[in-house]
Amino acid sequence: MVRWEPGARERLQTAALDLYVRQGYEQTTVSEIARSVGLTERTFFRHFADKREVLFQGQEKFRQTFVGAVAGAPADSTALGMVAAALTAAAAIFPDERRPYSVLRQQVIDAHPALRERELLKLAAVADAVVDALHRRSVPEPAATLAAQSGLTVFRVAFQQWLTDADGRSMLAVEGDVMRQLGVTTAGAAEALPAG
Amino acid sequence: MVRWEPGARERLQTAALDLYVRQGYEQTTVSEIARSVGLTERTFFRHFADKREVLFQGQEKFRQTFVGAVAGAPADSTALGMVAAALTAAAAIFPDERRPYSVLRQQVIDAHPALRERELLKLAAVADAVVDALHRRSVPEPAATLAAQSGLTVFRVAFQQWLTDADGRSMLAVEGDVMRQLGVTTAGAAEALPAG
Repeated sequence: MVRWEPGARERLQTAALDLYVRQGYEQTTVSEIARSVGLTERTFFRHFADKREVLFQGQEKFRQTFVGAVAGAPADSTALGMVAAALTAAAAIFPDERRPYSVLRQQVIDAHPALRERELLKLAAVADAVVDALHRRSVPEPAATLAAQSGLTVFRVAFQQWLTDADGRSMLAVEGDVMRQLGVTTAGAAEALPAG
Repeated sequence: MVRWEPGARERLQTAALDLYVRQGYEQTTVSEIARSVGLTERTFFRHFADKREVLFQGQEKFRQTFVGAVAGAPADSTALGMVAAALTAAAAIFPDERRPYSVLRQQVIDAHPALRERELLKLAAVADAVVDALHRRSVPEPAATLAAQSGLTVFRVAFQQWLTDADGRSMLAVEGDVMRQLGVTTAGAAEALPAG
């Protein structure tokens, strides 16, 4: 019989992150995570495939948020406008209350090359999904790939800043700032290389 | 006694790619590659760590080309100008004669998710190295990351186009075109998101 544990998933996630930070990711076992909140290994495995999965559990929602926002952007949007809609939607996944959790999660990931690779590949998969979504909105190449990759770059840079932002600005405010700086950085693109 | 085999490295590389394309990457063994050009497994392993390495052997030179060009760019260059210098230098690694080899190599990589991940991580490592090189040229954040990521995006999109370019344009010409399109795509960045 499968017992439903109210909030078990969230309790396991918080406990896991706490153990990863305190005693190290490698040193932590699934059994320890479960025991620390009075649950069994079996319960853990009903919620997560393995201990790495705890850190990447929001991945599908994250991808769908980007893709859904591109699909739902106004008909007259530019490619970058559709990507901006995706960044606006993604910012809502990271409200201020989530910052402490995100800081600890990033700390664990940055300390482990294999987890960093996993994170990188996850973001690359989201970029690919955004490219596909832009194609479905009739954005041609290379605009679709350029807009999607620029959007993911803005997200990554903004997320890093948001984690440690001295002024405690919202993710959306930081994204807006980074997007404007992308405009400044790429302003000379028309003359950066000789004409073909 | 280690015998020096003139051109052994290049012969092994060509033979390996030929076998990967004809009979499949998984199905090809190191022993087969070596035998097909009259060499031994031992000779193969003097040149490559494993059969995957044959496909990624130019990686260090590639990274150094980007980093060296950023380091050597004129003092008054913008961040994007330094990245453009890196793209110009990188284009020289891909002269027209190399296109047939690059097409086959890409075909093998695209057919294998693990190789695609390896390629992605390689390009991410180059982007990180370019960020470091821009920091050493006193480019601050987030301009350094935005310029480096934009440069690598231009490289990837241009490379893809160059492989199958109907007009047979040079890699530098295609890079120039993609860079200009990046400028068009990001032109609205200043107003894409609400001000913070």
